[in-house]
Amino acid sequence: MTDTTRPLVCHIPVCPFSQRLEILLALKGLPEAVDFHVVDITRPRPDWLLKRTGGTTAMPVLLLPDGGVIKESLVILRYLDEAFPEPPIARRDPYERAVERMLIAHEGSFTGCGYRFVMNRDPAARAGFVERMLGEYARLDAFLRRHNPDGTFLFDSFGLAEAVFTPMFMRFWFLDYYEGFDLPETEEYARVRRWRDACLAEPCARQVSREEIVKLYYDYALGCGNGALPEGRTVSSIAFKPHWAERPWPPRDKYGRAATDHELGLLVEDAGPDQ
Amino acid sequence: MTDTTRPLVCHIPVCPFSQRLEILLALKGLPEAVDFHVVDITRPRPDWLLKRTGGTTAMPVLLLPDGGVIKESLVILRYLDEAFPEPPIARRDPYERAVERMLIAHEGSFTGCGYRFVMNRDPAARAGFVERMLGEYARLDAFLRRHNPDGTFLFDSFGLAEAVFTPMFMRFWFLDYYEGFDLPETEEYARVRRWRDACLAEPCARQVSREEIVKLYYDYALGCGNGALPEGRTVSSIAFKPHWAERPWPPRDKYGRAATDHELGLLVEDAGPDQ
Repeated sequence: MTDTTRPLVCHIPVCPFSQRLEILLALKGLPEAVDFHVVDITRPRPDWLLKRTGGTTAMPVLLLPDGGVIKESLVILRYLDEAFPEPPIARRDPYERAVERMLIAHEGSFTGCGYRFVMNRDPAARAGFVERMLGEYARLDAFLRRHNPDGTFLFDSFGLAEAVFTPMFMRFWFLDYYEGFDLPETEEYARVRRWRDACLAEPCARQVSREEIVKLYYDYALGCGNGALPEGRTVSSIAFKPHWAERPWPPRDKYGRAATDHELGLLVEDAGPDQ
Repeated sequence: MTDTTRPLVCHIPVCPFSQRLEILLALKGLPEAVDFHVVDITRPRPDWLLKRTGGTTAMPVLLLPDGGVIKESLVILRYLDEAFPEPPIARRDPYERAVERMLIAHEGSFTGCGYRFVMNRDPAARAGFVERMLGEYARLDAFLRRHNPDGTFLFDSFGLAEAVFTPMFMRFWFLDYYEGFDLPETEEYARVRRWRDACLAEPCARQVSREEIVKLYYDYALGCGNGALPEGRTVSSIAFKPHWAERPWPPRDKYGRAATDHELGLLVEDAGPDQ
């Protein structure tokens, strides 16, 4: 619970919505302005938290020192940008703000599409997911070509729209690993690819790594999200112990036989002596 | 197409999303800042419009004199509030802006629920719609009780959240008429009821009337939205001629026999001599 004079973000482990907030604060040079607290998603929410939020369990949630509570990652993002106003990360010009908002408005379907794809268990449905995912990227490509055809980012630098999308581009490493799906290297997707690659290279957005995402999200590839346990398993792949760096890479074949706790290096006795 | 030096909003007839923009401009005392152009939804979009929007057909859309194009009613609403900044309609304080955004974030499911309810054709599904609609109002009630238990509006006056929801409260007159559904007069919903009633009484939000909504949306109650024609009909109830004021009130029973063009007063020969 740390310093109660600072805002506190409560979030689930490796939460992409919470990463948006960390990126924003890093861009502002204010990484210490807010504390972050990981909530164990395998247990009921703690009483002190439910009391503060009025019973809601949605994450991430921002708790303010004066008692205020803010939900929804995009709302928290705007709040932090406005409450710690220098430097602003959102655009200042009204028209540019509108363009930024229109791009951000795509994030819901983009995110949902990628998560449904990785969690799909029906090999026959795979082609449809590939098509929908490509459709999402095509929409982003068209938007960027319309509003900044020759640039890299939506405007001249990594900004609010990039803070919103980058955690999803990083999550979607799980599509590359478990589905062999990546953005095609064709001219058709060249604009969104330039954007995506620049987002992934941003120094302020290094909160997670490809290896961490691939290992922690193995259970998602088995259709089990948010800490739910696949059949026959006793430890979630999203667990923090044993540490992901000490576990082997999971099998890429998500449609075949599922790996065991032991094969995934999830049992504490499998781990090194410092566990 | 009017004055090309002013922004132009293109929208479908009696569009609630466009009404949001009219309310905002009325609140600012700037009703002339933007022109409004009704697009005939029974025909393909005109070429000049598709050329400006890059092929998209979504409405409403804001066309700026310098070539800029803004879509999504909530994005246009923010743009107009920022481009014509005095007086601001959105809150100024970062926390209040966050609270306002959290309430506005409910509008999508609220709107969708009411439209699906009025368009439902299965009497057996009706009870489920009533329950979901009450659930939507209960969420709004809880939100208002949490953030302003003793007030009328979300804050001290009719503001941005009210501009977003009021057109929906007005649309939902069709639920009262065709489904006999209205917000119960119980203590459970007293806070949202106080808010809703004050929104409906706001002088800046008188762009439509109950009679107009009930008559124009008859076809929605038959399951036909956006100008689609119910079987056996030749004129949409959302048509502008004959004028709605000259037509009889449609039958309330949406599940029984559907009314004809003639019974609805939709044939031009039925109308008065000034048609």
